Amino acid sequence: MKNISRLLGLAVGLGVLYAGMTTEAADKKKAKQLRHFVCFKYKAEATKAKIAVVEKAFAALENKITEIKAFEKGTNNSPEGLNKGFKHCYLITFGSEKDRDAYLVHPAHKKFVELVGPVVEDVFVVDYWAGK
Amino acid sequence: MKNISRLLGLAVGLGVLYAGMTTEAADKKKAKQLRHFVCFKYKAEATKAKIAVVEKAFAALENKITEIKAFEKGTNNSPEGLNKGFKHCYLITFGSEKDRDAYLVHPAHKKFVELVGPVVEDVFVVDYWAGK
Repeated sequence: MKNISRLLGLAVGLGVLYAGMTTEAADKKKAKQLRHFVCFKYKAEATKAKIAVVEKAFAALENKITEIKAFEKGTNNSPEGLNKGFKHCYLITFGSEKDRDAYLVHPAHKKFVELVGPVVEDVFVVDYWAGK
Repeated sequence: MKNISRLLGLAVGLGVLYAGMTTEAADKKKAKQLRHFVCFKYKAEATKAKIAVVEKAFAALENKITEIKAFEKGTNNSPEGLNKGFKHCYLITFGSEKDRDAYLVHPAHKKFVELVGPVVEDVFVVDYWAGK
């Protein structure tokens, strides 16, 4: 009985180890992250409804462009006042510069640029490899 | 022997399940992410060595300020030319606005601001709750 208990303990341990390794592999894949950080300054006349349409279209690119690894968005709430009038933030993650370049010329992205162009006053973009 | 095999299989399964649940709990904890996005435009006279010192000090805050959940940095490589002269990017993640506020007034952060102040020409900051 003692031996079976030990064997069971070992088996549970192996299971945890296996799952841990799978997670580690996933983390490693996630590790190479090219960030594409975008801020929009919408025109004063851009209504909330119009901004909502644009943001929905931006978020929808994740399902249309396979090169996008992750998409997130949010509205500035910094108390520092260093946002230079930019309020709307978008962070897209790619796995390579090739993928980022493919996104930039993708028909779905080009269509989105046509949608957003008339309602934005200014755009800020930086891309960088996420490092420590 | 067949029963022991089944039991072992079950135990491995339980181990995987347990590890999976732990990962899920970690993911949930990670889910609430307040992004603090910073860009520096270093002065023309700031040497590479000086920038390296500043960046090392910035990264070191992660070990000094417990409210910091994650820190990453990188140098702009966007081909779009919309970076407004900003090259150096830093992304800090917090779990709450309270934590972000605690960071802003933390003595270690204040000391860092004193270090970076004389070498930067311009600073851009936006904070946002990462949403979909």
